[in-house]
Amino acid sequence: MDPVKIKKARKEWNVPVSDFAMNTFNPIRSIVDGMKLTPNPQKEMIALSIGDPTVFGNLPVPEAAEEAVVEALKNRSYEKSRAAVAEYVSTPTTKMEAKDVILCSGCSGALDLCVTALANPGQNILMPRPGFSIYKTLAESMGVVVKTYDLLPEKNWEVDLQHLTDLIDGNTAAIIVNNPSNPCGSVYSKQHLEDILAIAAQYKVPIIADEIYEHFVFDGYHYYSMASLTNEVPILSCGGLTKRFLVPGWRLGWIIVYDQNGVLSEIRDGLASLSQRILGPNTLIQAALPDILKNTPPEFFHNTIQYIQQNAELFYKRFTKIPGLKPVMPQGAMYMMVGVDMPSFPEFKSDVQFTEKMVTEQSVFCLPASCFQYPGYFRVVLTVPAGKVNEACDRIEEFCRSHYRPGNTPREAMETNGN
Amino acid sequence: MDPVKIKKARKEWNVPVSDFAMNTFNPIRSIVDGMKLTPNPQKEMIALSIGDPTVFGNLPVPEAAEEAVVEALKNRSYEKSRAAVAEYVSTPTTKMEAKDVILCSGCSGALDLCVTALANPGQNILMPRPGFSIYKTLAESMGVVVKTYDLLPEKNWEVDLQHLTDLIDGNTAAIIVNNPSNPCGSVYSKQHLEDILAIAAQYKVPIIADEIYEHFVFDGYHYYSMASLTNEVPILSCGGLTKRFLVPGWRLGWIIVYDQNGVLSEIRDGLASLSQRILGPNTLIQAALPDILKNTPPEFFHNTIQYIQQNAELFYKRFTKIPGLKPVMPQGAMYMMVGVDMPSFPEFKSDVQFTEKMVTEQSVFCLPASCFQYPGYFRVVLTVPAGKVNEACDRIEEFCRSHYRPGNTPREAMETNGN
Repeated sequence: MDPVKIKKARKEWNVPVSDFAMNTFNPIRSIVDGMKLTPNPQKEMIALSIGDPTVFGNLPVPEAAEEAVVEALKNRSYEKSRAAVAEYVSTPTTKMEAKDVILCSGCSGALDLCVTALANPGQNILMPRPGFSIYKTLAESMGVVVKTYDLLPEKNWEVDLQHLTDLIDGNTAAIIVNNPSNPCGSVYSKQHLEDILAIAAQYKVPIIADEIYEHFVFDGYHYYSMASLTNEVPILSCGGLTKRFLVPGWRLGWIIVYDQNGVLSEIRDGLASLSQRILGPNTLIQAALPDILKNTPPEFFHNTIQYIQQNAELFYKRFTKIPGLKPVMPQGAMYMMVGVDMPSFPEFKSDVQFTEKMVTEQSVFCLPASCFQYPGYFRVVLTVPAGKVNEACDRIEEFCRSHYRPGNTPREAMETNGN
Repeated sequence: MDPVKIKKARKEWNVPVSDFAMNTFNPIRSIVDGMKLTPNPQKEMIALSIGDPTVFGNLPVPEAAEEAVVEALKNRSYEKSRAAVAEYVSTPTTKMEAKDVILCSGCSGALDLCVTALANPGQNILMPRPGFSIYKTLAESMGVVVKTYDLLPEKNWEVDLQHLTDLIDGNTAAIIVNNPSNPCGSVYSKQHLEDILAIAAQYKVPIIADEIYEHFVFDGYHYYSMASLTNEVPILSCGGLTKRFLVPGWRLGWIIVYDQNGVLSEIRDGLASLSQRILGPNTLIQAALPDILKNTPPEFFHNTIQYIQQNAELFYKRFTKIPGLKPVMPQGAMYMMVGVDMPSFPEFKSDVQFTEKMVTEQSVFCLPASCFQYPGYFRVVLTVPAGKVNEACDRIEEFCRSHYRPGNTPREAMETNGN
């Protein structure tokens, strides 16, 4: 070996991880992994934390979807899958075509592509607070700055429009709007969506619409896709089979490119390039997709939503009577946010401690809303079997009653006063 | 609206694509998309270009795999899938555990994670030439420099070890080794793999082993995993169901972390973080995985390989008799590289033009090896139905005979001479 070579040889193994991997950070994982989740051995665990609606087994996959997969094993053609999605999302006024559809590995894969195609490092993306943490994970790993706009609990989690406006600057690459919302369960009115679109139009900022819970709305509410309400704002709508069809692990997501004025042609090409990195979702599910979309009966969706709405109403009724809790009634999706009057629970420094102790004492796990950058709340998943709702509420009530200290001096005040 | 706001509002829609998306570049796509592929209407198209072994329908999915998916629709537990892979890759001397397995969306997803976890922008990764283009696509989109080490056709595509050594510097983050190889069909001997490992050990560079064609070797050859031959070099082995089980669209890939001396702990964490971005492969296939790995009979693999080997021998025999062609007999995988004596085909400037014209005249499409950064060759896929091999060879022979001009002055010489 020549001397130059010897010099460059490392003496020891040193295999550092890349900055990209180090910056890929899931706030839910890091908060939950840091919690001591030891249930009370006397009580069976009830997990109100997991966003997978099939985990309890009470909400089955549509039979039509299972049949479509079995059929797809025989006939593996998946050439029609994008056209089938285009037809599924088309409305009488907005006809979409296969070329407007990009199939992805789940809706998180769709969001990843959108963020990656739209924003350079140093640019910023606006996301809701409280909001689904994957936006932050995806953006920050790419060096994209995340700015959060406030949602207002007192207005059923509508966007604080002034705050949203104030955050926009020349480096804002996109606004992420999540409707219906995880974790809030909010469903925005036509007017409110138009107000958001007006801001996007004024500042010429494209929208990433996370519409994975499309049509997932309770009786009395209506779902509007953002794209149906604008002639101007370019929109990348992210959706998929996951939630509405209750097949969360099937990893079939999509992006619909709504670009009426042809301003997204570079982005289309970019999305196509990016989607070649990992070569698309499972072709078996792709092949099954047309039949899944066509053959799943309306009753399936109706029954699912009715089930969740009944749970929501029951949870809400119970929570309003529990001292120190302030639930916000959802209008769709499968979640409810519940405010905790933290000063009245002086034992606990945070929603994280509060929910941790609830596991220790009552074996009920609700996700602390710090996971959604919204301390002082917790999130309840509404897909739990109906029979367990009352049991869960009984335990939450017992927990709250045993720790509630009304009229207590707020902790901050205590600390400031040196008490 | 206040004046500050007015200033920052863009006047027109301008939605540029990110640098990352723009730098995501698939050489195969860009070469193939630039070709005029208009078949001769008198002749049915024979595509010897597509690496999907199921495209002709002659190589069916294992029945056991189909049954496993149907079963997985009923019993959706996928907790045992990583352990099943660990067992599948374990040998008597190297026992792997679930914690050493990361499931990915296909083998390309596995490679993406490895490159992304190991290399920072500005660092370099070494890959084979000719080589599978996705390494380049993945690395360059991340700003990672790709350096190619030569494979030697006269030595059955063994690595030019001196060239490999010369390329290593202090910024080399990994060496990618692909064995058995796409596009070469080479299968490395134990000695040759040990020689490569010795270089990696000397310079302390980890290896990404693309072993998606593991065990896919013809009679008389033996497959050695790189990890089985070293006690020192840390190895990320990428594999999956795709090729051996003939289910290319099922998107079930994996990384096996071989780290006997505990130097990859940061990388393990990084891979885990990265794999949370898109939340893993289809859970239906994950749930089916233990049964697929366990129940697919050895005859299935044996029959597939025998079929491909017979095709390889037939192609090789025919090609050796065609003027101007120089096939290199493969030892495994499902491809053969064929050299073209370009100076003897003076009509064509490159392998791209050569293969393009073969489509126009003969409706036979072979991928020009420029796609693998190796001009002057083309790649033939060996999974074509046996009945079509002779027909394809007849047409390739007719094409070559009609364009062959032996003893012709090489084009370069002609151009230099101003003729």
